[in-house]
Amino acid sequence: MDKIKVIGFDADDTLWVNEPYFRETESKFCNLLKNGMGLEEVTEKLFEIEIGNIPLYGYGTKGFVLSMIETGLKITKGNILAEKIQAILELGKAQMNKPIELLDGVVEVLENLKDKYRLIVATKGDLLDQERKLKKSGLLKYFHHIEVMSDKQIEDYQKLIKHLDVKPEELLMVGNSLKSDILPVLQLGGNAVHVPYHTTWEHEKVGNTEIQDASYTEIRNIRELIALLPV
Amino acid sequence: MDKIKVIGFDADDTLWVNEPYFRETESKFCNLLKNGMGLEEVTEKLFEIEIGNIPLYGYGTKGFVLSMIETGLKITKGNILAEKIQAILELGKAQMNKPIELLDGVVEVLENLKDKYRLIVATKGDLLDQERKLKKSGLLKYFHHIEVMSDKQIEDYQKLIKHLDVKPEELLMVGNSLKSDILPVLQLGGNAVHVPYHTTWEHEKVGNTEIQDASYTEIRNIRELIALLPV
Repeated sequence: MDKIKVIGFDADDTLWVNEPYFRETESKFCNLLKNGMGLEEVTEKLFEIEIGNIPLYGYGTKGFVLSMIETGLKITKGNILAEKIQAILELGKAQMNKPIELLDGVVEVLENLKDKYRLIVATKGDLLDQERKLKKSGLLKYFHHIEVMSDKQIEDYQKLIKHLDVKPEELLMVGNSLKSDILPVLQLGGNAVHVPYHTTWEHEKVGNTEIQDASYTEIRNIRELIALLPV
Repeated sequence: MDKIKVIGFDADDTLWVNEPYFRETESKFCNLLKNGMGLEEVTEKLFEIEIGNIPLYGYGTKGFVLSMIETGLKITKGNILAEKIQAILELGKAQMNKPIELLDGVVEVLENLKDKYRLIVATKGDLLDQERKLKKSGLLKYFHHIEVMSDKQIEDYQKLIKHLDVKPEELLMVGNSLKSDILPVLQLGGNAVHVPYHTTWEHEKVGNTEIQDASYTEIRNIRELIALLPV
């Protein structure tokens, strides 16, 4: 950890609340559709369609809305009222317009680290949506660079460190997703600190076998990051 | 033009065919909906809804699909068959899966300039969609950097040149949109070459008063760019 020059922060559920908003929208969507159908069944179908659409739509709210509409059509076998499609569009817009709720300790950590390291954001999702959230967050001033990535696999981080002109061991990634923020960075020879969040999207979960040999630090609050870094 | 270090290329309708695919999708959408309604009326309503949604959805195919669905609901006053919504979703997916058709002269120009300048792509649209098009195009090898921008206003180019670490006069932007590729770059003190394309989206059109004092070169084929640059 003493070689670190750049600290990359994941955004959603690392800097601010995000997944609960998706789950809230999903729950409203399920209630719109249920008609005697179990919530679990609707959620499962939505998840299946979302994952199937990722190669085409990528991550983010717009793809999520398109997948909700597709799920609505499929699950009702085309017997869906137009007003429910309208309601789904509105759920999406409402989610995009949510206020930003910073997580506890975030400002303190950025304030403490901003003059000691190059701080960046490395996030997945819709470009404009993520930029808007950053502006609304008031955190832009802390970051040298914002990278909205279409995915967070090893090759995506490879491009990022090339772009940042640093060696893997000079990067520390901080995030809530083992799959997207921690494991690919470690595999590249970088450093990673995991800050779990209470809600994790099914798609971001990893099995125990994948993490058993991984060497990273887990902290409970992002504030603990300060003490982990050399003084 | 003799200070130029970086040449930025717009992508859609500068490197490859794009707008005709949007117009083709739009025309199929209008045919789906018309039911005695004039095509012009449907197109106008769609345009109005698209523009209204840009602050929230940004540019790109996913927002376009969401706006088509919204237009369909509005124009039929909610009397739209679910199968037509399904058809709109499929129109969007088909558009995302279109092959890439390079414009005449593009490969020749990039081949000629690649060792003399830092070539980059500066494009608007959905992140993953634009990355996928670049991969499919086979042009990735020519570019030092790909910048997918949420918008192309002066401040967006300001960020870009800061990021590229060049002065405005060291940037030449090449593109088909006066509004997005030419005027903001000139206002910043950069250079610009306009390569008009036969189809321009209504939103990208500019009035004559906006361009009367602008100093840029217009060429008819991107191939002519080579002769404009110092040997």
